[in-house]
Amino acid sequence: MHIVADNLTITNPAVADAIDRSDPEPIRDLVRRCERAGAGMIDINPGPLSKNPKEKMTFLVETVLRTTQLPLLLDTSNPKALEAGLTACGGNAVINGFSLEPDKLEFILPLARTFDTRIIGYLLYPNSNVPIEGAERLNVALELFTRFQEAGLDRDRLIIDPVIPPLIWQNGHIQAMDVIKVIRTLPDLLGYPVQTIAGISNLTSGPGDKTRKPVFEQSYTAMLAEAGLTMALVNVFHTGTVAAIRACTTLMSDEIFSWAETASTRDGKR
Amino acid sequence: MHIVADNLTITNPAVADAIDRSDPEPIRDLVRRCERAGAGMIDINPGPLSKNPKEKMTFLVETVLRTTQLPLLLDTSNPKALEAGLTACGGNAVINGFSLEPDKLEFILPLARTFDTRIIGYLLYPNSNVPIEGAERLNVALELFTRFQEAGLDRDRLIIDPVIPPLIWQNGHIQAMDVIKVIRTLPDLLGYPVQTIAGISNLTSGPGDKTRKPVFEQSYTAMLAEAGLTMALVNVFHTGTVAAIRACTTLMSDEIFSWAETASTRDGKR
Repeated sequence: MHIVADNLTITNPAVADAIDRSDPEPIRDLVRRCERAGAGMIDINPGPLSKNPKEKMTFLVETVLRTTQLPLLLDTSNPKALEAGLTACGGNAVINGFSLEPDKLEFILPLARTFDTRIIGYLLYPNSNVPIEGAERLNVALELFTRFQEAGLDRDRLIIDPVIPPLIWQNGHIQAMDVIKVIRTLPDLLGYPVQTIAGISNLTSGPGDKTRKPVFEQSYTAMLAEAGLTMALVNVFHTGTVAAIRACTTLMSDEIFSWAETASTRDGKR
Repeated sequence: MHIVADNLTITNPAVADAIDRSDPEPIRDLVRRCERAGAGMIDINPGPLSKNPKEKMTFLVETVLRTTQLPLLLDTSNPKALEAGLTACGGNAVINGFSLEPDKLEFILPLARTFDTRIIGYLLYPNSNVPIEGAERLNVALELFTRFQEAGLDRDRLIIDPVIPPLIWQNGHIQAMDVIKVIRTLPDLLGYPVQTIAGISNLTSGPGDKTRKPVFEQSYTAMLAEAGLTMALVNVFHTGTVAAIRACTTLMSDEIFSWAETASTRDGKR
């Protein structure tokens, strides 16, 4: 299970300020700390970038590329920002992402073909609502896969995000357990080893017991790993969660087990 | 997932000494601490008790019964000790346990009928070896279930232990992941919601990295929970593992989620 840092996000005031001032140093410092903390990929999430989307995304991508060799995810709903970001990295990033929402199908999905990149597809209804039941999620996955193939893309370019619900939603924990089953079912449903990603910080977002949140996040992450999740989008400064991902990666590896850490288990690679 | 304390064991020198001297106080102190730490059941494991099996087991069971209301498991391979222990508690305990080993089938399994108790069945070959592959474990489960039913016992009295291998065994981690699948498969294989138990301390037993063992134990426990394990036999002083079990129990509960702990989630009940 690959570890993707969700830390480079506009919701972090230091990041918002650095983007606003086009100051690379706070971005570079954060990316370095993410890499040291175990990130195997960096998600760049500047929000919708309503002002100067091209300049801001180009600045961000170039800043991160000057700082790390780690693969990137470009995480914005703004197609202009996405296109500029993809141009800045020569198409060497994962697009995060599209869904059945008409704007996303029309303006985001085609960028994956133009730049020949992988793209994340969210299991959301066309009105952007989250499906409640596991069976609804699977129906959405089938429709998403159809639209993805109609866009002329190879199936290996698709990474499905089943959308982890916060526990504080109504029946949030029941939906969260449904998501586990969806991840386990997708390869059978679509007929190939489909890649998956999940934003694990969602589970415990919002108000809650800060002392209990880490154990919920870590336990749920282990369940996701066993279900076959390919990429975990996490706050890499949650050291317990990163340690859990590494342990799961070791448990699920075909390599010979040793209590000594190896480079591959450290990086959360399989 | 019920939390069963594995702490009252002959391998703890204080317990061995207390049994040797028939001194109830160290036993009572340990049981009280297990209950405070979150135990929902107590496994009494005095070893084979080659000397004075009846007296020693009677002493142990009476001592524990004077200390706690928690349900008991009687964990010895000595049929005389088991019979004495079951007599001392009026048959109000789980027998831990039998297997396809001829002595166990002949002398242990019938006690479950005599005392009308639940009994744990280990997935072991008749020669007491552990099956290596998941498919072998399932074959042993079918044979065990047949022998169990031939003994005239109701299927609700059976609790299957798939035997967690230590990670330091050859391919131990691969076998450990097979065990997860076995637990998930057993209800389909046997055609009813079969109860299961697993000794979680086994996973990290032996030499190893003490700083990494807890995260392996906790991550693996979450995987077992998601697979549907009924009872977790654990060292209840491993606070991280007990916290993980409680979090998993809450995630898998049908009750309304709240960040405030409830009595049922504290006890690891479903």
